Amino acid sequence: MWEDWKSLIVEMRKGSVRGLARLITRVENREPGWMDAMQMIYPMTGNACVIGITGSPGAGKSTLTDRLARELFDRGFKIGIIAVDPSSPFSGGALLGDRLRMKEVSTLDDVFIRSMATRGALGGLNLSARDVVKIMDAFGKDIILIETVGVGQDEVEVVKAADMVLVVCVPGMGDGIQAIKAGIMEIADIFVVNKADQGEADQAVADISAMLELSSDETSSQVPVLKTIAATGEGVLDLVTIMLKLQEVGRIRSSWHEERIKEEILSLLEKEVAYILRCRWDQNGNLDQAVKQVIARKKDPYSIVQEMLALMHLQ
Amino acid sequence: MWEDWKSLIVEMRKGSVRGLARLITRVENREPGWMDAMQMIYPMTGNACVIGITGSPGAGKSTLTDRLARELFDRGFKIGIIAVDPSSPFSGGALLGDRLRMKEVSTLDDVFIRSMATRGALGGLNLSARDVVKIMDAFGKDIILIETVGVGQDEVEVVKAADMVLVVCVPGMGDGIQAIKAGIMEIADIFVVNKADQGEADQAVADISAMLELSSDETSSQVPVLKTIAATGEGVLDLVTIMLKLQEVGRIRSSWHEERIKEEILSLLEKEVAYILRCRWDQNGNLDQAVKQVIARKKDPYSIVQEMLALMHLQ
Repeated sequence: MWEDWKSLIVEMRKGSVRGLARLITRVENREPGWMDAMQMIYPMTGNACVIGITGSPGAGKSTLTDRLARELFDRGFKIGIIAVDPSSPFSGGALLGDRLRMKEVSTLDDVFIRSMATRGALGGLNLSARDVVKIMDAFGKDIILIETVGVGQDEVEVVKAADMVLVVCVPGMGDGIQAIKAGIMEIADIFVVNKADQGEADQAVADISAMLELSSDETSSQVPVLKTIAATGEGVLDLVTIMLKLQEVGRIRSSWHEERIKEEILSLLEKEVAYILRCRWDQNGNLDQAVKQVIARKKDPYSIVQEMLALMHLQ
Repeated sequence: MWEDWKSLIVEMRKGSVRGLARLITRVENREPGWMDAMQMIYPMTGNACVIGITGSPGAGKSTLTDRLARELFDRGFKIGIIAVDPSSPFSGGALLGDRLRMKEVSTLDDVFIRSMATRGALGGLNLSARDVVKIMDAFGKDIILIETVGVGQDEVEVVKAADMVLVVCVPGMGDGIQAIKAGIMEIADIFVVNKADQGEADQAVADISAMLELSSDETSSQVPVLKTIAATGEGVLDLVTIMLKLQEVGRIRSSWHEERIKEEILSLLEKEVAYILRCRWDQNGNLDQAVKQVIARKKDPYSIVQEMLALMHLQ
């Protein structure tokens, strides 16, 4: 089994796109030995610049990601794209909306696109984009674009894995309070007002700039706010220029490097514990037993959890 | 300490709103003994109907929640409101947008409003709305409205705690593919097209109905799609009528009662494990040590996690 992983990693390192795709799939599926494989891959990582692209549904993130990938590709960068789709919590299947839109860039060599389903909490598997980032990094990608849909939790996940974060919004969608509510002010390295031909784009830029000025974070006022029309490509060149400039200045987030690694370890540990608990419990039927006791009102979830914690020496 | 909890629970059960608020705060802060307190509270729960209200930022959820609370209050129900704000991942503080808007209902007696920050993954605390629901339930609330902002993870959390889910959208925001992407099709018991005076509301209703028809889920085609203008109150009466009718038919989600309790136990266990791991590691400085080793490239996060799992007998 281990030989299997090893030869796959060697194949990937030699530049096999098929090997890369298979490796990601096997890690995503948590096939036995995946952690050992990641241990082997880890020393090969650390070169790629990871750029998170986030914002509300309908803001045009997929189109913008496509344009950015094309621009960066033209400048000689090897590009990886990770699209994190919040899949249906019940079906567990991601829909193909983004893939339909990203057809332009997917025909380019050296642009590797991977769609990940965030299987949500019902499915119990909170896959980490970080693992996929690492594999793409080890493969030799220079820039990895992570596109995430939605606000909240997902954005936090992006920022934890990214060196630079683009927050994409559209004119007139929600008001100021809503924008701040999502907690995106602090995570943005660049704000992009996309679909700038629709609605009052200049007003949106002014609003965002004003909010950045008001922010308690000192660096916020230096965050660029750009207008783009991803559909036509307008403004994308300027955006790429600023992105590369920011990258040149140094990894944007390197200042909290320690914090990031800490989070990486804790997040990985938590995901693994959750995964193991679910698997083990389901196998033994202990969980079903516990559920029956709760329904019969003989026990409550809190005492069951306390018993479990004691078994894990965590009480 | 235990006497302290006990007298607070007694105070709350006697109808003290201050006792209720203090109890929630102490549970939220995970003060020592909180799990024992929840064990004591658990048998007092099971009467409230929990209604989740979710949808994109800017859809007018807060205004609609306010209107619904007022309508239900007028019909004699005791109402609790939980507003889950995705707080800034960095500051950890929730903004007051919703509170500003909900001022109408907050002046009513017997409507208890509680704002919860989802402290996100960076803060390490994923508080559960479930605990707050249980306390409000034990207090004697008949209907608990949970308003969540954002799409994705948050919605999944709502559905897991709710007996009925309202998905709120506005005309013209995003296209069909985006709406399905967020995985909201399957969790909605009622669709609300709010701000129906803006844009093409009838078209939005038709689009949503068409998507529901196409859904693989048989019950989806029976999901009502309603138009409201929360700001003026238009359509809210119809909405309340349908909500109460659905409730009369029986708890909407009772069919997967077992699944819900299973999730409740696992989610509670995972949150506790995560919390304990973070606290314990941070106390001992082991985590800092591990981070330093990763930065020095002497170790990688994957082997550190494997060592930790072995210590917990989970390897």
